[in-house]
Formats: sequence, structure tokens, C-alpha cells
Amino acid sequence: MAVSLLSRLSLCRSSLHTFRWHRRYNKASAALCERLRLFESLRDAQRKGGEAAGDGPLTVRLADGRTLEARAGVTTPLIVAQRARVKGPLVSKVNGVLWDLVRPLEADCELELLGFDTIEGKQTAWRTAVCVVGGVLEGAFGAELCGEGVSESGLYCDHLLDTGSLSLSDVEERCKEAAVRKLPLSTLQLNTDALQQLFQNSKLRLQLVEELMDGQTLTVYRCGDSLGVCDGPLLPHTGILKVFKMLQVCFVYNLSQPQCSSVMRLLGVAFPGEREREEWEREQEEARKRDHRRIGKDQELFFFNDVSPGSCFFLPKGAHIYNTLTDFIKSEYRRRGFSEVVTPTLYSTALWERSGHWEHYSDNMFTLASEGTQTYALKPMNCPAHCLMFEQRVRSWRELPLRWADFGALHRNELSGALGGLTRVRRFCQDDAHIFCTPEQLEEEIVACLEFVRCVYRVFGFSFHCLLSTRPTPCLGEQQLWDTAEQQLQSSLQQFGERWEINPGDGAFYGPKIDIQIKDAIGRQHQCATIQLDFQLPIRFDLQYVGRDGQTHRPVMVHRAVLGSLERMIAILAENFGGKWPLWLSPVQVMVIPVGGDCESYGQQVVQRFHEAGFMAELNEEHGATLNKKVRSAQLAQYNYIFVVGEKECVSETVSVRTRGGKQLGRRPMEEVLSLLTLLRDTRSNQDEF
Amino acid sequence: MAVSLLSRLSLCRSSLHTFRWHRRYNKASAALCERLRLFESLRDAQRKGGEAAGDGPLTVRLADGRTLEARAGVTTPLIVAQRARVKGPLVSKVNGVLWDLVRPLEADCELELLGFDTIEGKQTAWRTAVCVVGGVLEGAFGAELCGEGVSESGLYCDHLLDTGSLSLSDVEERCKEAAVRKLPLSTLQLNTDALQQLFQNSKLRLQLVEELMDGQTLTVYRCGDSLGVCDGPLLPHTGILKVFKMLQVCFVYNLSQPQCSSVMRLLGVAFPGEREREEWEREQEEARKRDHRRIGKDQELFFFNDVSPGSCFFLPKGAHIYNTLTDFIKSEYRRRGFSEVVTPTLYSTALWERSGHWEHYSDNMFTLASEGTQTYALKPMNCPAHCLMFEQRVRSWRELPLRWADFGALHRNELSGALGGLTRVRRFCQDDAHIFCTPEQLEEEIVACLEFVRCVYRVFGFSFHCLLSTRPTPCLGEQQLWDTAEQQLQSSLQQFGERWEINPGDGAFYGPKIDIQIKDAIGRQHQCATIQLDFQLPIRFDLQYVGRDGQTHRPVMVHRAVLGSLERMIAILAENFGGKWPLWLSPVQVMVIPVGGDCESYGQQVVQRFHEAGFMAELNEEHGATLNKKVRSAQLAQYNYIFVVGEKECVSETVSVRTRGGKQLGRRPMEEVLSLLTLLRDTRSNQDEF
Repeated sequence: MAVSLLSRLSLCRSSLHTFRWHRRYNKASAALCERLRLFESLRDAQRKGGEAAGDGPLTVRLADGRTLEARAGVTTPLIVAQRARVKGPLVSKVNGVLWDLVRPLEADCELELLGFDTIEGKQTAWRTAVCVVGGVLEGAFGAELCGEGVSESGLYCDHLLDTGSLSLSDVEERCKEAAVRKLPLSTLQLNTDALQQLFQNSKLRLQLVEELMDGQTLTVYRCGDSLGVCDGPLLPHTGILKVFKMLQVCFVYNLSQPQCSSVMRLLGVAFPGEREREEWEREQEEARKRDHRRIGKDQELFFFNDVSPGSCFFLPKGAHIYNTLTDFIKSEYRRRGFSEVVTPTLYSTALWERSGHWEHYSDNMFTLASEGTQTYALKPMNCPAHCLMFEQRVRSWRELPLRWADFGALHRNELSGALGGLTRVRRFCQDDAHIFCTPEQLEEEIVACLEFVRCVYRVFGFSFHCLLSTRPTPCLGEQQLWDTAEQQLQSSLQQFGERWEINPGDGAFYGPKIDIQIKDAIGRQHQCATIQLDFQLPIRFDLQYVGRDGQTHRPVMVHRAVLGSLERMIAILAENFGGKWPLWLSPVQVMVIPVGGDCESYGQQVVQRFHEAGFMAELNEEHGATLNKKVRSAQLAQYNYIFVVGEKECVSETVSVRTRGGKQLGRRPMEEVLSLLTLLRDTRSNQDEF
Repeated sequence: MAVSLLSRLSLCRSSLHTFRWHRRYNKASAALCERLRLFESLRDAQRKGGEAAGDGPLTVRLADGRTLEARAGVTTPLIVAQRARVKGPLVSKVNGVLWDLVRPLEADCELELLGFDTIEGKQTAWRTAVCVVGGVLEGAFGAELCGEGVSESGLYCDHLLDTGSLSLSDVEERCKEAAVRKLPLSTLQLNTDALQQLFQNSKLRLQLVEELMDGQTLTVYRCGDSLGVCDGPLLPHTGILKVFKMLQVCFVYNLSQPQCSSVMRLLGVAFPGEREREEWEREQEEARKRDHRRIGKDQELFFFNDVSPGSCFFLPKGAHIYNTLTDFIKSEYRRRGFSEVVTPTLYSTALWERSGHWEHYSDNMFTLASEGTQTYALKPMNCPAHCLMFEQRVRSWRELPLRWADFGALHRNELSGALGGLTRVRRFCQDDAHIFCTPEQLEEEIVACLEFVRCVYRVFGFSFHCLLSTRPTPCLGEQQLWDTAEQQLQSSLQQFGERWEINPGDGAFYGPKIDIQIKDAIGRQHQCATIQLDFQLPIRFDLQYVGRDGQTHRPVMVHRAVLGSLERMIAILAENFGGKWPLWLSPVQVMVIPVGGDCESYGQQVVQRFHEAGFMAELNEEHGATLNKKVRSAQLAQYNYIFVVGEKECVSETVSVRTRGGKQLGRRPMEEVLSLLTLLRDTRSNQDEF
């Protein structure tokens, strides 16, 4: 079972859906019986191991600070929940690690009990629902399943059935009936040896296991008579799910088997009860209203066109937001000692071979031929160009750190089926920068990067926390290099002082990294900023500097971005603000409405004055509409401030100010309002009133 | 003979060298004798025609205002020059049209006599030298010639000889010997009929004539026993050329015959005397010093790398200039009602087919395939994207004019052999904008465009004049449309009030245009800005707006650019300023040199203060060097201002200011200097002192 956390876009990795193929053994064959038996014996062994290891008393500390006594190998999170009267838990976290509710605790621990109102809870419910839906598709509809999983927005089951034969409400009904039978679910963490034992008769399964395995163990589940592989905990039994809602059936492009064109995907969600379903529907409605594609269209910010799939056309108002964001970052660059550079778009494969991208990333690159023999690729990232700049001449320690920023357009050849709005594009710009520094400077540079991130996210009103991803297996570079770097990153994080966690083994193969997880105004999490160490590129480009000692040394290279993709950040901000842009970002800041024909020239003066001061100000030249209607339509068009100017205002050089939200701020001297708005804009305030 | 005016880069046309093939008939064959006879008889006929038409008295007005009496069909510009005691004329202009010195005048006229100090004079000398050098290559070295011509920097002869067999000094010597024989040269303007008669026995010649013919007539010359085709006047005889200098032999990539790889190009120059040669060498040395590639390297502004031929890497200081220029234009956009848009880089061929670029321009486009069937091309220009934006929804006359500006990177697939520095690149950005307006708005919009150009060029200190290029043959669009548009452009130019000329028949096939010819500080001419009307794209995209009358109408589209290619403008500016950037553009504005260790922290404060005010300020941290040496090296590095701070300055919060040019402006309060520099920068002054 695949969890595609769509929100986690790595800076250097394409995040296409991974399809995970397996076959369910739900017709009780001899082989299946044997497997089920083996599964149970392995579970017993694991249980006994747990009991043997512990069986003593342990202390559980809950998130609210309470502590409870429990028994190792016996007490489960579900029992703790019952004793602590925590309602509706679906899954737990033991010392930060996801843990099935019915899996006994093993030692003293911190325990979080997570309900449907958490992402982990929702995904556990949906992961379980996948077992139910899959069973129904196979059992009741005879579908051949070929992939399944959950994302932040629901569950999916891929199958080879024709769409016509599926009625969504039918599936819902049958799922409800199946779930009610309270099929117990159990999971087991198995290592490669145990997995090979369990699946020894199935080549397909072993292949799958090999594909899925990216740590030491893999989770195997049993649901009724079905065995499967999943990558997260499940509910104790299916009966916890009371409501199933199937959303749509669509065609999917299958990466592993592009020739197989008949794979259909059933999308759905499931809930522990009607209350959760209603809440989810409210959220959906809110999200629909906030959808950046809708805001983009309504506000004439941007559009897409089939002549350039995945590349956005920013209309003047969208380009205003785009440039305002860029200017914000540029002003921070100036304060923080970054210099901008401008680099080419097309590079010969010779460069990509040197950087290693050709080996690891060429599938995602747009390539073209020129003058017969030469092959060029559109850059998917800027780092190799910056390495060329570094090696342009001999560098001295006196020059370091060098901090080079590049807003160059990047292209990544995502499949057209995977494109959507501003969040999945083929062409984008990043507030990308690379730092070349001495190993001794690293800690300070990382703290400075983190402070940069905090400064920007404060302006947006995002809360955030950091994830330190450490060395994966396999990885490149000396052990000691990794040790030191990971220690330096930890020490930077400590010094920085914000909440952070370790994400073991999730670093890139070329170095550890810090990802910054933000939470927006509607509680959604995104990962945009990243700070990645790179030990490999300086080696590949043989980058060197002359140290204070007169010897040559290898610099450390840091990739970092704060906004990440500007396109994606605009989508996040549009949805975060629900289209109500704060003054400084707003492409429609001031609407001046003259009342009576005599005031039009004064209105024009006001517009002129604000325009000269750098504001987006417009004169309402509609004739015929009532004042109220004009005000209302300016508010709907999200003008931050509406100035009504009549005879009184004209004589006294004032404006009557209303906010987008409907507040009347009274008649004020024009120059005073100009100063106040200038202050709000220049401090990038999110405040409306003054 | 081909004149490739390298400085005239059209916005929408690639300006590759055109090779023009012909074969000289210098071995007196029967066919040649027949041709020579025909040539002479045609010349006699033309002469007689001239005599018949005129043979009366006429008045010649010279450039200095003098008038002389002469006889039509008899008096030549050379005779006028002798009578008026004008020394060293090489060619003339009669009523603005180039005219051989020995071609009799036909009617009252204004006559300019042009010497070697003019571009026209130089090119006439070099065009004549081509005949001499070509004859020597064929006669003395047995070379087979396959192309020849002149450019602003000299002459070239393409041939199929091996390089090894040519000694440059040998060629020079033999040319001198040949020229001394004073071979007379005569030219004839012939129309198609006469050309077909003259070359009736030579298919190759007729092909060539067809290729070269882009007006009504073509120039045929006779030099000794050789006949050839050229596109400009020649000297009366070869004896005027006293000095020949061959510069180099290089391999050329032959566009017409790419399979033929052995074409060698001999480059050279020739002079009427030693004085002119010395003057030319001084200019060459000056140009070498000012060469933007040298300035780019010395000042660490930019570099090129083989991994991306024709695409520039702008280092921080170059990017600073790049961004400062862009910001300048952006601030003007805001004042002048332009809005920026951001558009994709890659577009499907469907768009290029619709716009007509696929038919006319695809050879110059980088194309690539994606997902098997789709072909995309990197945009070589922005116009089709802006048409898509226009047609995005129904437009009203109330919205017009729409002025959309786009700094998007453009790619044009120039041959790698044609690339050089920032002036011949494959990737560049323009300050490109398109105006969509009603026909009634056109005149006002054009005046506004011209005023925009004047405003920017005044800042650079360029003088300029305008060329109105009218309809070519053939052209697209109704006669009446052209009439009205050309009248409107003329009327805009009148209103604008700067010097302008008509360039008949040189418009694009899709509309007339105004090119702006600038003259830089060292007297060189460049064409950067352009204002082009386009009748075709609005038709191809079926662009419409709803007029005041409720009916739909076709908008007029204007392509315009002021800087043109930013890359090329940076090259022009670098050479114009000789690397001495004015304060506002300079990437190194202030160098603070502390005298004595105690002053370093005060020096740091000064740097900080100027940095915060947006200046590029640095602290000199060199130890050991003398003050004089530090000042000198800051001046050589082109820091606009050098602040020396010692104990006195530290105590009094002053700085001792020196300019790059060596002027000492005395000890001044730091805040005063800051205000003065801020004023100089913000007004984009070219002044140094204050």
C-alpha cells in the first residue's frame, strides 16, 4: 500500500505517484493457508519476544502531561486510551513513531493518541478503508486490483475493470456492509529474512518487497483472509469505519506499464461517523472556494493553455504578485549577503554528466539536439551552473562564504497527466541559492538560513517546524564527514530554537538536509523551504579554495530555498489567504469611487497620487451603478481599500475609507491615508485597519 | 558582393552572414569578351539615356551649404570635388543615395562627398579592395573563389585554398602591385531584363542574380577584365588604394553548402595611404581596450562556457548591471502604463504554426519532443504568447490600450560559428512589450513609444535618429491599411520632433516600422530600439475587441523594445563607457580605505551605512600595501568613489572623497556625501563630481 504524501515535494526529486503492485490472496488456497499460518506464527514470535524483553512495569506519559502505569508487552495504546478516557483514537505515536492501537507498548514512552482530526488519524482510517474497498472490488465486482494507497485527500484503488460496470453508490453500500463485519486487522514489522520466508512461493511478492523496502523492515498486514503490504498502521478492525464515500473513477497513466492503458482508479474517503463526514464536506467546500485555480481565474491572475502544458501564463495581476514576492526575497538577499547571478537555460549533456544529473535525473529533463551532434538539456536546477562559476578562477578563503542566488526558470519533464494548477508544473522559478563555505563556517551559515526562513514565514503568518533528515542507506561520502555535518546541523537547529525533529535516514544520498514544514491558515501542512548539504558536487567539480594556510581545501556546498517554487508558493498563499491578499502582495490595492461627476477629476488626482507612491490604484469609471453597488463589487474584487470621494472630500482633500471587509474607517486626509498605507505595505503587515 | 552590416540586427530576423557565390571571368574567353562588349554597350546606352534626359545645367548643393553649377549627364561628383577643393573623396551621396564618384549627375541635387573617415567611404574602399584581393587570389595563387564581401570591420574573400599555401604578407605585396596598375572600375545599375541579357549563357550567374535581387535593380561592376555583382559603389580605379593589410585566414561554416567543409576566409583591410592605416590601428587599439569581452573578464562581469554556447553566465557584478538596467525599464513601465506579464518558455508547434513562425522562422528555433508525439520549441520571441493572453476573454475598448511587457528569456538557434561575446548570442532577454490598441490610438501610442526611447537614451548619453521603414514588396495586408499606418507613423515622427528619414521598402512584410539608430560615445552606430506595427498577428489569432459602437473590431498590435537585447545593450554600454560605468549602473560604487588599524571599525560603519542605502560599498581589508597603492588599485578596478578614512575622519564622522578619475573632493560629512551620491544615483546622472 502506498502513501503518497503529495505535499512533500523534494527539491531535487520528482514526486510522481508510486504504484505498488500486489495481488491479494483472498481465495483461501492451500498456499494462502500456509502463509496465514506463517504470519500468525511470526506474530506470536514477535509478541513473545516483546513479552520476554519486557513484561515489567512501564510509565506512559500522555501529550497532556498525565502519566499512567502500564505493563510492557501487555498494555496497548487502545487500553491506555480507554483508561485515560480519550475518545475516538485511531492510531498512536510512541516516542514520535506511528504505532498501531493494538500493538503492546514495550518500554517507558511518550504516547500520543490521534483521532480523525489529525492527518495521521485520517490516513490510518483510509489505509484501513483501502482493505475494505479492495476486498469489495475483488469480491463483489470481480475486479483485478493492481495498485492502491492513500494520499492527503483520500484513498485510491487501481483496477482493470471497465468504468461502466461500477456504480459508486453500489460500492459505498457494499463497503458499509463489509466493514460492519468488524474484520480484525493486524500488522507485523518484518525484516528481509522474515519477508522472504513469508513470500517464498511468490516471485511477484518478493519483487514487490524488494521494490518497497527502503529501510530495514516492511509492514505486512492481515485483514480477514487477505495478506498485504502497507507502509503504515491500520485500525484494530474494519467496524470502526461507518461511512464510505466514493468520489470518482478516472483513468490513470501507468508509469511501470505504459503500454497498459486500461487501468482505472477509484477515489474515495471513509469516516468513523456522520459527524466526521460532515466536517470533511465543510472543509471540501472551503477548499473549493480557496482553490488557487479558482482564485487565479476569478482575479485574472494566471491561466494555463494546452500549447504549453504545465507552464503558467501570469497575467498582469499575477505577475504583480510574482514580482512582489521576488522583490521581497531580493531585499532579504541584500540584507543577508546573497548576490544574484544570471545563468543559461540550456546546457550540453557534458555538464549533466559531470554533475551526475544525467545518470540520476535524465528522465525528467527536456533534451534537444543542435547542429547535429550536440545534445542539450533545459536545466532542471541551477547547481551545476553555480559550480562552473565557482571554478571560474582560483578562490581564496577570504572570499568565502559565497552566496549566489538565481531566479532562473527551471524545467522538469513531468508527465502531462500529473500536471495540475500551480502545484504540479513543468516550468517554475525558485528563490534558489547556493552557498559555498568552509567547513568551519557551516554551522553559522545554516543558522542564518534558518533565520531567513523564519523572517519570511513570519510575514506570511505561517507556523513551522524543522525536520533534520540524516544519512540514508546507501549514501555517498565518508562516514566522518556525515557525522560532523549532522552534528553541525543539530547544533544549528538547537541554536535556532524552533521545534525540530529527526527524520532518520531521509537525507539525500549526497548529504543531510533540513526540511521546513509549514502550517498555513487552514491548518494544511506544506514543505517549501529546504536546506541541503551537498558533499558530492564539490568533489565532482573538484571545487577548491586556498585556505589561510596556503593549502587547497574542498568547500562545502549548501542548496537552499525559502519560498521553493514561486509558482507553488503563489498557490499556497492564494489558498492560505483565500484570495484576500494582504496589502503588500495585493494586485488591487485601492479603488477610488467618485460620487457625482464633479468629483471625477479629484478622484483622478487621488489615483495619480497613490500610483506615484507605488500603489495599484484605480478609478471607478462605471456609470449608472449605485454607490453601494460599486463599493460591493470593489469588495468582491478584493480591493483592499475603497475610497469614496464626494464634494466634501474634494474640498477638504480627504478620502472616505472603507476596507475590503466592510469596515468604515471614516473621512481622513488623503496624505495621512497615504502614509498609513505606505507603512502597512512597507512593513508587509497583514493588518487591514489603521 | 555582400555587405553584411553586422550592426543592424533586426528584432525578428536572424542576421547570419549571407554568402554570395559567383565566378569571375578573368580569363579572356570568347564568352567573356561577348559579356564585356555587352556591358560596355549597356553602359553607353545608360550614359546616352542620361545625356538625353538632361544635358542641361543643374545646381549642386554641397553639405557645407555651397552651391555649384554643373551639367547633367556630364559633371561627376569627382569633378565637383576637384572644383570645390574637397580632398580625398571616395564615394558620394546624391540626395541621400550612394553614388559612384565617376557617375554623372542627372539633376539638381544635394551632394555629400565622403572620405575614408566615413563608414560609406571605408566600405567603398574595401569593396574595391575585394576586387583586387580576389583577382590576386585567383591570378597569383590559383584559388577558386566562392564568396566575398565587406563588413564594418573589413573585407573578406572566401576560397577553397588550403591555408598553408597562403602567406599574408605575400598577398599584401601582390595586392599593392596589382592596385598600382590603376585598373579602372565601372558599375551599372541593371534591371532584371538587362541582367538576364548580360548573363544569358550562365545559369549560375542567373541563379545568383535571383538570389541577390531584393529591389528593382542590381549593381554590376567591371574591374579590368572581371565582371561581378556588388551591392554598392566602387572607387574610380584601384590605384587609390595604397596599403593592403591582411588580418587572418579562418575556416568558415558554409550555410548554402554545409557538406563542403574546406571553405577558408581571408580577412583584410585596405587604405588610401599610411595616415589612414595608422588612424585605423589607433582605433583598433582603442576598440580592443573597450572590447566588452575584455571588460567583462577584467571586471568579473560575465563569462561564456562551451557547455552552453552563446548563453552568457552573469557573475554577481554583471547581474547587478543586468538587474539595474531592468529596474530602470521597470520604473519607466510603471510611469508609462505598461504592465509586466510572465509567460512560458516552451510552446507546442501548434502555436508557432498559428503565429506563422513555424513557416518563416523554424530553422532558428530550438525544438524538442516530449511524450512521444508532441513537439515543442523554445520561444524566440514573446508575441504569440501575448496574443494568447489577449484572446483569453472578450476585450472591450475601455481596456485598450493594453501594454504588456515581458522579460522572458528568448532562444534563437544561431550557428555556433556565428556566436561572439554578448552581441551574437543564442539566449537573451529583451525589454520586450506589445501594445494592443484601437487604430485611433495608434498615433498617440507611437509618440509615447518614441518618447520612452528618448528618455532612456538621454540617460545613456546616446544621440539618435529614426528610420521609418515602409512597405516592402511583397507585403501582406490591405493597401489602405498600409497607407493609413504609414501616415500615422510619419505624423508621430513629425510630432516627436527628432531627426528622421524614410527607408523605403524596408518594413517587415507584416507592417511598417520605426528603427532607432543610436550613436555611442565613440561614434559607432547601433540599432537597438524598434517600434514595429503588426497587421498579421491580430488576424492570425483573430483578436477582437468590442468597440464603443457595440461591434467587434480588430486591434492594432505594436512590437516595441527600447534596450532591445539586454545582453547586447550591456556590450554596447560597456564599450560606450569603456568600462567606466556611471554611478547608477556601476557594480563597484564605493571603496572605503581605512588608514591605520583604529579606523577599521569606523570604515566598517561607513560601508554599512552606504550598503543600507542601497550602494555597492566595500571595505579595503588589504594589509601591507601603501595608501597610494590601495587608492590606485581601487581606481583601476573602476570604483566610482574612494573614501579614505583616518583618525580625523573617524572623529568628525567625515570621509575624504576621491573620484575614480583621480579628483580629490576633500573631507566631507559622511551623511552629506551619502545624500549627494544618492541624488546622483537616483537621477541616473553621468556626472562624477559633486
